[in-house]
Amino acid sequence: GCRPGPDGMEELATEKEAEESHRQDSVNLLTFILLLTLTILTIWLFKHRRVRFLHETGLAMIYGLLVGVILRYGIPATSYHNKTPPSCSLKEGPVSTLLLNVSGKFYEYTLKGEINSREIHNVEQNDMLRKVTFDPEVFFNILLPPIIFHAGYSLKKRHFFRNLGSIITYAFLGTAISCFVIGNLMYGVVKLMQVAGQLTDKFYYTDCLFFGAIISATDPVTVLAIFNELHADGDLYALLFGESVMNDAVAIVLSSSIVAYQPSGANTHMFDASAFFKSVGIFLGIFSGSFVMGAATGVVTFTKLHCFPLLETALFFLMSWSTFLLAEACGFTGVVAVLFCGITQAHYTYNNLSEESTKRTKQLFEVLHFLAENFIFSYMGLALFTFQNHIFSPLFIFGAFIAIFIGRAFNIYPLSFLLNLGRRHKIKGNFQHMMMFAGLRGAMAFALAIRDTATYARQMMFTTTLLIVFFTVWVFGGGTTPMLSWLHIRVGVDPDQDQQPCGDNFQVLQGDGTAADGQSKTKQESAWLFRLWYTFDHNYLKPILTHSGPPLTSTLPSCCGPLANCLTSPQAYENQEQLRDHDCDLMRNDGDMTFTFGDTAITANGASGGGGDGAGGSGWSVNGKKQGSTSEEALEHDLDSREQELLSHGTRLVFPIEDHI
Amino acid sequence: GCRPGPDGMEELATEKEAEESHRQDSVNLLTFILLLTLTILTIWLFKHRRVRFLHETGLAMIYGLLVGVILRYGIPATSYHNKTPPSCSLKEGPVSTLLLNVSGKFYEYTLKGEINSREIHNVEQNDMLRKVTFDPEVFFNILLPPIIFHAGYSLKKRHFFRNLGSIITYAFLGTAISCFVIGNLMYGVVKLMQVAGQLTDKFYYTDCLFFGAIISATDPVTVLAIFNELHADGDLYALLFGESVMNDAVAIVLSSSIVAYQPSGANTHMFDASAFFKSVGIFLGIFSGSFVMGAATGVVTFTKLHCFPLLETALFFLMSWSTFLLAEACGFTGVVAVLFCGITQAHYTYNNLSEESTKRTKQLFEVLHFLAENFIFSYMGLALFTFQNHIFSPLFIFGAFIAIFIGRAFNIYPLSFLLNLGRRHKIKGNFQHMMMFAGLRGAMAFALAIRDTATYARQMMFTTTLLIVFFTVWVFGGGTTPMLSWLHIRVGVDPDQDQQPCGDNFQVLQGDGTAADGQSKTKQESAWLFRLWYTFDHNYLKPILTHSGPPLTSTLPSCCGPLANCLTSPQAYENQEQLRDHDCDLMRNDGDMTFTFGDTAITANGASGGGGDGAGGSGWSVNGKKQGSTSEEALEHDLDSREQELLSHGTRLVFPIEDHI
Repeated sequence: GCRPGPDGMEELATEKEAEESHRQDSVNLLTFILLLTLTILTIWLFKHRRVRFLHETGLAMIYGLLVGVILRYGIPATSYHNKTPPSCSLKEGPVSTLLLNVSGKFYEYTLKGEINSREIHNVEQNDMLRKVTFDPEVFFNILLPPIIFHAGYSLKKRHFFRNLGSIITYAFLGTAISCFVIGNLMYGVVKLMQVAGQLTDKFYYTDCLFFGAIISATDPVTVLAIFNELHADGDLYALLFGESVMNDAVAIVLSSSIVAYQPSGANTHMFDASAFFKSVGIFLGIFSGSFVMGAATGVVTFTKLHCFPLLETALFFLMSWSTFLLAEACGFTGVVAVLFCGITQAHYTYNNLSEESTKRTKQLFEVLHFLAENFIFSYMGLALFTFQNHIFSPLFIFGAFIAIFIGRAFNIYPLSFLLNLGRRHKIKGNFQHMMMFAGLRGAMAFALAIRDTATYARQMMFTTTLLIVFFTVWVFGGGTTPMLSWLHIRVGVDPDQDQQPCGDNFQVLQGDGTAADGQSKTKQESAWLFRLWYTFDHNYLKPILTHSGPPLTSTLPSCCGPLANCLTSPQAYENQEQLRDHDCDLMRNDGDMTFTFGDTAITANGASGGGGDGAGGSGWSVNGKKQGSTSEEALEHDLDSREQELLSHGTRLVFPIEDHI
Repeated sequence: GCRPGPDGMEELATEKEAEESHRQDSVNLLTFILLLTLTILTIWLFKHRRVRFLHETGLAMIYGLLVGVILRYGIPATSYHNKTPPSCSLKEGPVSTLLLNVSGKFYEYTLKGEINSREIHNVEQNDMLRKVTFDPEVFFNILLPPIIFHAGYSLKKRHFFRNLGSIITYAFLGTAISCFVIGNLMYGVVKLMQVAGQLTDKFYYTDCLFFGAIISATDPVTVLAIFNELHADGDLYALLFGESVMNDAVAIVLSSSIVAYQPSGANTHMFDASAFFKSVGIFLGIFSGSFVMGAATGVVTFTKLHCFPLLETALFFLMSWSTFLLAEACGFTGVVAVLFCGITQAHYTYNNLSEESTKRTKQLFEVLHFLAENFIFSYMGLALFTFQNHIFSPLFIFGAFIAIFIGRAFNIYPLSFLLNLGRRHKIKGNFQHMMMFAGLRGAMAFALAIRDTATYARQMMFTTTLLIVFFTVWVFGGGTTPMLSWLHIRVGVDPDQDQQPCGDNFQVLQGDGTAADGQSKTKQESAWLFRLWYTFDHNYLKPILTHSGPPLTSTLPSCCGPLANCLTSPQAYENQEQLRDHDCDLMRNDGDMTFTFGDTAITANGASGGGGDGAGGSGWSVNGKKQGSTSEEALEHDLDSREQELLSHGTRLVFPIEDHI
């Protein structure tokens, strides 16, 4: 733009417009950053004063709301240019790229989206409000991955694996139940609205199901933060956290399979079996594809780049991101792949990193997760006022609030009942109520809802989702602490005490400690399955993929000697010695399932608890065969004592005892 | 897209196209991530094997080139749809937003850019190659800020401030000289090309100057990495690093002022005084504005959020980014603001962070910087083959290579001569040659060149810049180690030994250690100016802005007592005691200018060197008045001994000596 003449002048005008637009972008982004800054400062104040009724995400929403109000009503609506843009017509349908011929010069234009006829005249007018509206794909491709990855990465594995069966049941079956219950209830509401004449455009059954899917993604971030702070019961934490992490994945895949459910012919109200099975097939395909891809990348990331923490962290970051992209490129769901990548990396790759890198990597993802999460929540607050196409329908909103509670209830209570039939240590009533209460909606529901707001039905869903998120985060999030004490849920659980099988000198005072020994045989198979997996993982996968675990040479049959030698890391031999000495410490760091260890670790009076430290060491199942029978017994013993521990919440008295006194 | 009928079908087609495009985007991003991963793995191999002839950035470029070749020639040119997009015509000039009317439905389109008439028919054909071409603003707004911020943040302050005068001279005067020398030489080349008929479009004088500006931004990242690894001379490092950091800022502002230089009337070849002064005014305005804004934000970021490292790190990150955005929003240059924000934060805010946060923050920016830098360099390699509008003009390229060397020579040698007239410890011949040699071009030159590639002249510049970057990074970067030894530049300087004023038990064996005492009086003023700033900074700014330094109550006159009490952090009082005890350690961590301390630290025979540890402690100028005369002497003494140290490179023998033996 440094040339004069009519040509240059015109160029200059465009350049100025571009500059103005760039400046506007900067201001918008700055708004968000100042919002986040404000949130951080207030969080600090809250943490300092130990305020617990409002979580940072709730706070971020409030600030977002305030800024939204200012943007909407505080700034005059007229923008710097106030005209309807020129239009031209074509006979063909919308194309992604359009050429504009201005007196022989060609300009390229890209499709931004369809706009409603009522919007045409204020396309440029509401420039400011439109500009603070992000491309929804930003949420999916940039903000969600670090949140989900961090969730997978920070799973407390021991509790997670111990409750894996229940978590999977809640996440898969529960989310599907919730989706269909909500979908059907909402279809009733929609029919009612149609009768009352409150519906101005089409609202199909698939739309209702879609709403059921997106609103079934729970996000109890607020509740879990309080759990963490108060050290609430580890198993309940694992159930809630595991369920919320997994059901995000289920909801995302479920919603895309519902979109793919396209019955043949014009009749959309009837059930179409082939389309239904196609959807189920898509669901299974996408889910398992993403799972395999995530797990595979997580396993492949095993790095041996010791000594260069910067390189290790960068590599870790890149591999996690490439999992996401790879899954997206293959047509799977990146978010799901990233979740399983995180879980796998936490299990295997983490052990390969140097201590420095471990810390670095964890902190990097912590910061990214923190920023992304608070950004999404403050954006939600903002969106309530700046989003242009809200459709507030009181009946729909009221119906949705009722429906999500009914849906959650149909998820938790019946499934808990069924699970309790099989579980050794039951999910008790107060845990069930807490899970019911912790059905908050958050980032995932929002991201799914904002992804497509093109039609009338979707716009109404978006508005409703936003309000549900606000309500649940503020009311249920704020009510967590009172609810915990009202339901008599054990808090102040020492994380070390929770690791008793290692023989800590803690003792649980038993309130109503009646051991349910009668059931110990009935669920043998499930425990057996886990033990099989554990043995395989510990003896073969861990040695191949990490530097820890026993060397393959000692676990593989002697005929595979050369192969074992080749696959075993030299460090594994050194580790072996260490393992024998410090298995207890290692397990604590490693966070593995401990139920095959520490056979005599806990007894009712704690007298032999201290001795378990050494005895547990000898229980180490190095070759998985010799110790087979012993560890089986140990397992049962351990599960029993854990049960007693869970039953002991009545007294909630936990105190350290001097060694053997 | 879950509804049938002709409407739904059409929607489905668009959706499929969008999905395809999304998948394509994922593949492209994945390409870059795999490139980076490959680079990291190879770097690790190189570091492991201590290979020094190829730096990671050079490596990233090679991998980029390879992938570029594959994308260009390995993949069939025909994309998934192979048609010229439809066009429509308008009488008015290009607008940013265009509406398309397709049988009553309106679609919004946004301007992507002008395209050459020769390109129209393969707009969609070269889809793959076009897609891997990023929006140039990505470089400016996302990738450069962390690089520049990290540069400012990691300045070794002591050496930097000691050579500040020279660095500023090289950066401002030197870059301006280089810009005008290169601009004028290139104008000669362009005239020659015009005569030879090799020029097919317009190429103005301002274009040449613009080229001079962008190519004057040096980036000796390769050289500095080797300096760091070999522990080369600290002053030379500071000169090179400081110059390259500051001249990025100068080049960026210079290039935008040249764009603003728009002589009135059609005669662009003549010198227009008013336009020239307007440009100078813009330069000064933008530069000082960005400087003030960066420094101000850096100072404001002083956080007292101890105990919550995550919050501190997040806040630090957000404040740095908001500096960038704030400057851009105000029409200043974000990159320059971020640079000074980094320097200020390193000086003040850093001291306020908890130890944990300090480490976290540093590591976070390290990772970001590492990824961004390697991404830019691998993108450069890729761009050589995938960029669509390269114009290779051998004469222009040859001319540019000659011009940048002449420009660099006109920068370094005359300015060094002038600076040596005033400097106490001269910039010697071998240092000058090394600075001449280290004039690599890198990320900044590339980002400036790619920012606007709309015209013929700019396209030719872009191609030439790319080739210059390749050549300088590979040839000069690779030749650094031989060059260092050929020029007899001292390596293996122990960073601790470099801090001798603190009284380490090291001794420098003097080769030709003739103290140049005669000059010690001539530059009294410059030293006086620095001392004044230092005293002000240490006694007033640091206590107000950080928790370190002496409490204000002891530095301010007694009349300001209440104010001083109010502004002083409670920790400052505690620090005061600590400072007296551990001033030596603190200085080393703090990296401050030490020339007011350690008065008798180094002597020729090192006998009293050990004693300086205690004596230097008493030289701490707590209230800046009492110690005034002493520290003045100390300063001169210290500078003299440093000079001797610099002169001692002839023997290059540095070894630790047992205390006082």
